Amino acid sequence: MTDVKEDGWEIIRFNGHSQSILHEEVAIEAPLTIRINGSEFATIVCSPSNQSDLVIGFLASEGVIRFKDEIRRISIDEKLGFAYVDLYKQIDPSQIDHSKRFIGSCCGKSRQFYFKSDVKTAKTITSKLSITVDQCFQLMKELQTNSEQFIRTGGVHNAALATCEGILTIRTDIGRHNALDKIYGHIIHEKIRVADKLIVFSGRISSEVLLKISKIGVGILLSKSAPTDLGLQLAADLGITTIGFARGNKMNVYTHPERIINTAMNAP
Amino acid sequence: MTDVKEDGWEIIRFNGHSQSILHEEVAIEAPLTIRINGSEFATIVCSPSNQSDLVIGFLASEGVIRFKDEIRRISIDEKLGFAYVDLYKQIDPSQIDHSKRFIGSCCGKSRQFYFKSDVKTAKTITSKLSITVDQCFQLMKELQTNSEQFIRTGGVHNAALATCEGILTIRTDIGRHNALDKIYGHIIHEKIRVADKLIVFSGRISSEVLLKISKIGVGILLSKSAPTDLGLQLAADLGITTIGFARGNKMNVYTHPERIINTAMNAP
Repeated sequence: MTDVKEDGWEIIRFNGHSQSILHEEVAIEAPLTIRINGSEFATIVCSPSNQSDLVIGFLASEGVIRFKDEIRRISIDEKLGFAYVDLYKQIDPSQIDHSKRFIGSCCGKSRQFYFKSDVKTAKTITSKLSITVDQCFQLMKELQTNSEQFIRTGGVHNAALATCEGILTIRTDIGRHNALDKIYGHIIHEKIRVADKLIVFSGRISSEVLLKISKIGVGILLSKSAPTDLGLQLAADLGITTIGFARGNKMNVYTHPERIINTAMNAP
Repeated sequence: MTDVKEDGWEIIRFNGHSQSILHEEVAIEAPLTIRINGSEFATIVCSPSNQSDLVIGFLASEGVIRFKDEIRRISIDEKLGFAYVDLYKQIDPSQIDHSKRFIGSCCGKSRQFYFKSDVKTAKTITSKLSITVDQCFQLMKELQTNSEQFIRTGGVHNAALATCEGILTIRTDIGRHNALDKIYGHIIHEKIRVADKLIVFSGRISSEVLLKISKIGVGILLSKSAPTDLGLQLAADLGITTIGFARGNKMNVYTHPERIINTAMNAP
């Protein structure tokens, strides 16, 4: 299923007082209701591609599963927007406290914040991966070049799994959290080793994004957009290198710069 | 409380291979846990300004309240990030099915989607308000001019309540839904008549945004950003005029163009 309604909407475009009627492509947004073992768990709105990845990543982000092997079966009804998930374990969806806040008695700063479901899954990253400044510029350029849908609709986010040498997989969604969940689901589904990988991202570096990065287990987040203060506190605490405002040949390194190597490119 | 950490973060800025250490201002993001009548209802992350407006707007968006008079008292603990809401009515927060999907048997198109809590609150707009093309350009210019925080941090969204003649109130948040909820809360708190008002917005026109606009009850949404297909379906169904990509002296009118008047400005 495509993420773009290609026949589009008939719109009136104004350029000053001059008006014309055009057909414009628009990003598709669709509800997806996730049922676990027969009970309704949550409904998310998303772009209707890679929905199986999205469901796996969403459940992992919410702390419901950690590994592919916990899933007996997933089936997606694209037309009605339902995902039916059978897990081997018994769970009561109404008892999952994914939106309950965890008030820790320990430590200061960011850790008082976490949601309960994050406490057991967010982990400090000890990745030894390092990346050169030029590789960062190149990866962001590659993400942008591949963002055909953004160019067409202006309405989607991209998240990519990459090595320092290049992008491996891109996932796209109208929601930036969904785009990351699709990548997370892809990693779980394909059992990909992440120690030598990073995430390249179009969206803002918020606390929720940082918690997902930590759960995925990568040590470097490279983004085109701005960070928030809480996102950076979490990144500092959890050992994650955050790079924001990566545009053209400029970027800001906010946390854990020890993974960034600043050398000119070697001659071939 | 300010929404920006003014002493900022110490960052490394790369411009090509040239690097420098700077202090950069960053948007603050803080958790806010809402307790209703003593029980935890939800935690949202937000910019820590206008939190009382945010709570009122959020509860109205979720269908928990509709009017200010339903609230006995709200108190905010800014330091710990808690909002204590006392309502006159008894409710059991765990029984509020705000994330349960509503599968209607009626009508086609977008209405099959709504969340259960939306069914009773989303309403078709019959506003007779009309606006000129020049007024649209002027309002978006005014929103941009007043977005000091965006200019400083690049990380926030703005929503404004406006008449055709100018902006009345701007609310800012790291989350675009929060920015809208702050405006909604302000309207409820001040008991503002909305028939002659519109919303000016920096964020995307998604289904969730459209449902909020419908609940607020305004007939025109003017945004800088792109729409989604489901957002436009809802707008078409609910009688809302949507204008996207409003930048400089260009804009796209997607739905209900009958409220847009294209005449050159009258001489003074």
